[in-house]
Amino acid sequence: MSKKITFDYWQHLYSNRTENMFSSEIRDLLSLSARPDIISFAGGLPEVRALSFQKLERYIKRILKADGDISLQYGGSDGYYPLRTKLIEVMKLEGLDVVEEDIITTTGGQQALDLLAKVFINTGDTIIVESPAYTGALNSFKSYEAKIIEIPVDDNGINILILEERLKELEKKKIQVKFIYLVPNFSNPSGITLSLLRRKKILELAKKYRTIILEDNPYGMLRYEGKSLPTIKELDTKGDNQNVIYLSTLSKLLAPGLRIGWIVAPHPILEKIMLGVQSTILCVSAFTQRIAYEYFSDPSWYENIDRFISIYSRRRDVMIKTLEDTFPKSASWSKPKGGFFIWLKLPEYLNTKEILADAVRNKVAYVPGSGFYADDRGLSEARLAFCTENTERIEKGIKILSRIVKEKIKLYKSFK
Amino acid sequence: MSKKITFDYWQHLYSNRTENMFSSEIRDLLSLSARPDIISFAGGLPEVRALSFQKLERYIKRILKADGDISLQYGGSDGYYPLRTKLIEVMKLEGLDVVEEDIITTTGGQQALDLLAKVFINTGDTIIVESPAYTGALNSFKSYEAKIIEIPVDDNGINILILEERLKELEKKKIQVKFIYLVPNFSNPSGITLSLLRRKKILELAKKYRTIILEDNPYGMLRYEGKSLPTIKELDTKGDNQNVIYLSTLSKLLAPGLRIGWIVAPHPILEKIMLGVQSTILCVSAFTQRIAYEYFSDPSWYENIDRFISIYSRRRDVMIKTLEDTFPKSASWSKPKGGFFIWLKLPEYLNTKEILADAVRNKVAYVPGSGFYADDRGLSEARLAFCTENTERIEKGIKILSRIVKEKIKLYKSFK
Repeated sequence: MSKKITFDYWQHLYSNRTENMFSSEIRDLLSLSARPDIISFAGGLPEVRALSFQKLERYIKRILKADGDISLQYGGSDGYYPLRTKLIEVMKLEGLDVVEEDIITTTGGQQALDLLAKVFINTGDTIIVESPAYTGALNSFKSYEAKIIEIPVDDNGINILILEERLKELEKKKIQVKFIYLVPNFSNPSGITLSLLRRKKILELAKKYRTIILEDNPYGMLRYEGKSLPTIKELDTKGDNQNVIYLSTLSKLLAPGLRIGWIVAPHPILEKIMLGVQSTILCVSAFTQRIAYEYFSDPSWYENIDRFISIYSRRRDVMIKTLEDTFPKSASWSKPKGGFFIWLKLPEYLNTKEILADAVRNKVAYVPGSGFYADDRGLSEARLAFCTENTERIEKGIKILSRIVKEKIKLYKSFK
Repeated sequence: MSKKITFDYWQHLYSNRTENMFSSEIRDLLSLSARPDIISFAGGLPEVRALSFQKLERYIKRILKADGDISLQYGGSDGYYPLRTKLIEVMKLEGLDVVEEDIITTTGGQQALDLLAKVFINTGDTIIVESPAYTGALNSFKSYEAKIIEIPVDDNGINILILEERLKELEKKKIQVKFIYLVPNFSNPSGITLSLLRRKKILELAKKYRTIILEDNPYGMLRYEGKSLPTIKELDTKGDNQNVIYLSTLSKLLAPGLRIGWIVAPHPILEKIMLGVQSTILCVSAFTQRIAYEYFSDPSWYENIDRFISIYSRRRDVMIKTLEDTFPKSASWSKPKGGFFIWLKLPEYLNTKEILADAVRNKVAYVPGSGFYADDRGLSEARLAFCTENTERIEKGIKILSRIVKEKIKLYKSFK
């Protein structure tokens, strides 16, 4: 079957949006990181081996016995109600107070982003993102042909002064910003956390300019030091209008393989999102939602979070220490207080895409920075995931990277 | 939290497409059909209780033991390779001969439709569907703001003469048809099967007008009488250009709760679909794909198909016999040779939406016909799913419906 196609016969049939859909560098590299001989700082793969597979087996046994027929059947478009009750408990730990009717479950956090883009973005609509921003979010927003405005982050998160300036300019031009997309806690990819002051300020700005904040919080519960900050959603108490849509995922708290995320939004918006669920997937897997329900019904899930924190914080410590011990002074990196990622900045004359080829030859992978910008910036930057490899391999991998970077710097200077 | 919203503050932020997204009548009614006291001919819920839950438990035990870490992790955007190998075996039974690289897995058949719409439809683009057509497909195409042209079906499927006429007209107006959507076997909702002659003719037309046929085949293996016909995909052998995209689902062969469907398409198209997967869900659940792989690795799955066929064909027989025995002569219905659905036509002065209210009061549910048209036709038609209820309840439910319909006819005539 699979005939060789020498030209693309279907060119006249594709939608315009396909021109804006680029393959995610993260996804392409996941194929590399799957090779056991590669030390992967590429994909943010959680340590699912820290889960008890025996317990999972027991949950599933119980499910098939108690209501296999329901969990193997189609489910409701708003998600499995008892799981939503459990998600309320999860969110309580983040300081949120919501009810089941405020929540809709999705096929992972990525579908939450896609559904929100579907509900808000017309071709050419303006949205704002922190910069660098999560590739998956950029991919989704691009596929809806949004005009993406990037506001740089510093050590305290998105730059509020620049944000306010841009919002003012846009208002003058009568351009409505559809939403502002943020990962306030230990952002993907920067690892940076938005300060409390800025959380308050950005909420004010959203209200003033009548726009929405998409608060994406996959890593909030994975904090390794310091005191947790209130979510922007929690701060949004003034007036009748809720300007924050909160989204998260079970990929980091349980397992990505179950593909469960969720959205908390005002009801009129949820209604539109639910129509989006119906037209895109009909419903989220009743079976994996049922498994997640069992998982969060077993109090041992709290201990699992502690276990995750203990594993990831050690990995972070080793990665930062090895960076400090071995990397040249001309490089810098973020020091995340939680989450999965460190953002690395090399001297501007270095290209992390080029270096990746060398790195992979030496059995180390990471994600070049350019994928986290809507344009082609970030060429000398890179995302390092410390969540996936054990401390020994992290130390080894960073040392290899350091050697390659030093060689590149030496080579550059010898030509100068 | 959940504050009462008296007006929709977010009205200025919604995308235009939200105006085209209507709640699926099927989905809304699924909430009804879940009530055990209701005899439901509404949702096409397969008889998952015919599966061996013990075997499923064994498969999952094996999965968690052998490679729990991989099946709980993120997977590739093209789908779990070993499952695609199994899908090749499934499709062989339908006469198809493809390789793993021709296949991409999706989150149920619905996502296959959504991804294809994403890849092909710009706002205002023209597509063609058989009429009546599957609501889920209409919902998805509407959400991409397609202009939908409906070609009526008769006892042999979509009317080829009308189709050719419309294609000619559109070509004259220089309008490119992006694709023609069909369920050739035991269509949802009509139950009708496209004749071989028409399969050949429609393929010719697709080639002549340089368009694509979306061949949706969820029910092909559930044939209860007669000889199976080749898929349009199988007939598409002429020239280098493959004009058929084939899609199907495991919802009917295994279980909807796992949310697995798939697409077979030419490689340049598959590449774009894969980018769509990345931007919408990242990847299909590795866990449920792994379960499906185990299921199709156990030869007993062939026997399960036989069991499904035996169950559903008996239910079909009872529904048709009860319709014949009890329904008034002024009503007519399709006699499907397979699948899940019978299409009921009542006298034109009756309204199946209005009758539904009475039916539900009498503990019977079905789907009114209007949801299966892009406009508001089908008011006196209805879809009856015979797959869900046992034969006793089918007989009882149809008798109740018959009584209500007869009363309505009597009432109408008394006022005339």
